[in-house]
Amino acid sequence: MIFQLTCTRCGTSLPFRIRDIRCVCGGTLAVEYDMERVRRRLTQDRLRGRAASMWRYRELLPVRHDKHIVSLGEGWTPLVRLEAAAKSLSLGGLWIKRDEQNPTGSFKARGFSAAVSVAQEHGIRRVAVNSNGNAASALAAYAARAGMEAFVFVPRDCPRPIVEECLLYGARTVYVDGLIHDAGRIVGEGEAEQLWHHVGTLQEPGRAEGKKTMGLELAEQLSWQLPDVIVYPTGGGSGVIGMWRAFAQLRELGWVGERLPRFVSVQEAGCQPIVDAMSGRPHTAKGDSAPTGMRVPNPPDLELVVSVLRASGGTAIAVTGDEIGQARKAMGAQGISSSPEGAATWAAMIRLTADGWIRKREKVVLFNTCHAMKYTAGETEPVAVVRNYAEWAGLGLD
Amino acid sequence: MIFQLTCTRCGTSLPFRIRDIRCVCGGTLAVEYDMERVRRRLTQDRLRGRAASMWRYRELLPVRHDKHIVSLGEGWTPLVRLEAAAKSLSLGGLWIKRDEQNPTGSFKARGFSAAVSVAQEHGIRRVAVNSNGNAASALAAYAARAGMEAFVFVPRDCPRPIVEECLLYGARTVYVDGLIHDAGRIVGEGEAEQLWHHVGTLQEPGRAEGKKTMGLELAEQLSWQLPDVIVYPTGGGSGVIGMWRAFAQLRELGWVGERLPRFVSVQEAGCQPIVDAMSGRPHTAKGDSAPTGMRVPNPPDLELVVSVLRASGGTAIAVTGDEIGQARKAMGAQGISSSPEGAATWAAMIRLTADGWIRKREKVVLFNTCHAMKYTAGETEPVAVVRNYAEWAGLGLD
Repeated sequence: MIFQLTCTRCGTSLPFRIRDIRCVCGGTLAVEYDMERVRRRLTQDRLRGRAASMWRYRELLPVRHDKHIVSLGEGWTPLVRLEAAAKSLSLGGLWIKRDEQNPTGSFKARGFSAAVSVAQEHGIRRVAVNSNGNAASALAAYAARAGMEAFVFVPRDCPRPIVEECLLYGARTVYVDGLIHDAGRIVGEGEAEQLWHHVGTLQEPGRAEGKKTMGLELAEQLSWQLPDVIVYPTGGGSGVIGMWRAFAQLRELGWVGERLPRFVSVQEAGCQPIVDAMSGRPHTAKGDSAPTGMRVPNPPDLELVVSVLRASGGTAIAVTGDEIGQARKAMGAQGISSSPEGAATWAAMIRLTADGWIRKREKVVLFNTCHAMKYTAGETEPVAVVRNYAEWAGLGLD
Repeated sequence: MIFQLTCTRCGTSLPFRIRDIRCVCGGTLAVEYDMERVRRRLTQDRLRGRAASMWRYRELLPVRHDKHIVSLGEGWTPLVRLEAAAKSLSLGGLWIKRDEQNPTGSFKARGFSAAVSVAQEHGIRRVAVNSNGNAASALAAYAARAGMEAFVFVPRDCPRPIVEECLLYGARTVYVDGLIHDAGRIVGEGEAEQLWHHVGTLQEPGRAEGKKTMGLELAEQLSWQLPDVIVYPTGGGSGVIGMWRAFAQLRELGWVGERLPRFVSVQEAGCQPIVDAMSGRPHTAKGDSAPTGMRVPNPPDLELVVSVLRASGGTAIAVTGDEIGQARKAMGAQGISSSPEGAATWAAMIRLTADGWIRKREKVVLFNTCHAMKYTAGETEPVAVVRNYAEWAGLGLD
């Protein structure tokens, strides 16, 4: 085998397939590779000569033939070091992974480049997804690139610029009067009748593998010295699951040390199932937070996300909308624009350094997962209008 | 000398400086490098090991010390091949350079990473720019990163998302009741009193050098085989000027052949000074087109832009707003989102292949210079709202 599926809960192995990736035990099936083959084909030296794309790690992605790869220029996004902030917070290093600099303006490009490539390799021509927005536009773009029909279902309060993106790519786009899991129910119910391929979170094997490349890149960009802490905005959790698998694979290859980063899942207060599960509170499925990628009241495999956070020695934290707003300004003042999701990681980092969970001299990586521009519409700080220099000088703005 | 200034019109050389880059003859001064030094330090082999950033070409950028580089993760953007379109248009190859995948969502990041670095090296603490929008937000971001005060002046119809970006980065942001050159007059008039450094187009040497990296990257990404035609949306023209200098320098290094690409400058009908100048029509300074980066009625050095287009065997073309709208949809259907500027390059390419100016089997590169999202607000295609699968199926959208 080149790759197969293995249950993340009971360890059962099965031949690779693209549907029904729940094991009979209830666990999620994940892709496992012939690591001896990977070791023979993927070396750090070969990597240096490869293109700046997530497909540089192609031996660790579940596509057999290069001709099936559907690419729009995804991955190898900048990892920007924030020296001044690190110093003032007494950190050993602070970086932000600018994953908004992907096609479709979000990290979702990674998952859908992989998932649509896998679908392409299996002859799929119709795809559908439920999404808070970014997954919808990413599917729309990659499906268009591959000549597939795309159907996307988003909550009614999905930001309009994202909906416009979906329409631009030609996806059949529908608002759902409900939350992301309500949209998921529609996609699931339609599968038999519409014969579309369900590419919702953890419904097929490609997306989590695509997300894995965030972890692979992070490791390579930091010269295979992993950080102490990764702060990540979490909705369905495939990013956390994917990166954890990335680090485990790199450890198996002997490219990183034994100690892996502690993951911090950040959610917005009002929709915090992962935070609640980590602290043993009963699951409430409340979705009373802003319409961002973090608003996922019913993660498809909450148990798996929690197990990764625990295994990493990590935690989960809910920040408020006010904290997110303040964080957005703090990052803006450093020249970094951020989505609410990205700003949430800054807010969480501030809290965790203040209370000592993140310790002095630790190395921390934040993720900005989506373009600020998808969420900026509607802010109304007034801006003066002038005709000449004298008018401007008269305003006393200097 | 490591680098100096040389007049693009009369050839006079002067020591490097960051202000007053007009020669006494009226020509624009451009940066010239000690190419023997560049040759010793910059090899194709060394390049392969360098970071995926425009600063990989640092020997060809006018900054002496690395510590002055102000970076937010700019450059080395994807060059995506459009195979299907190339085939249907009988081209030898068609690519789009996704320069929207830069910090601040536009190609302007390159110019301002360079210009703010140069300013930093010269102790500047206050910077100001006139802009149609993207230059303003790029200056705002890089100035924030460098801890400089930024003042930005944009036309009153500048898209609101861009203005919000400027505010987010903390720039003093003002609307000007006029066009980009009216804004430029304000920045110029304020120089003496405000002691700000004017980083408008061709007012200082950094921006055109930063833009040059588009040409260097293009060459490297195409394995030093330059395309036949580059279609580029043109406002002030520093991109055309910069890329032309890039190719000349690569030719001097012997890395590319003698024959350089033909440049096509694309403008929107209603504001087309470059198109008019190329066809010998009198200059009218009309600004009756949409508020995009292409709307520059009075380019700072029109003669220089025209001389580059002519020297390259190129042309200039004005496309209509309708053509831009159609092009945006055509690109969207291929999974590529585009700004009006980027869509204009597709529209121009379609016309030039139809009329034979671009010949069969030629290789063509388009540029998407800015994020689609900056311009999407306000489109109102209605989207249905459903509560469940039955309702959706009832709409007959499948």
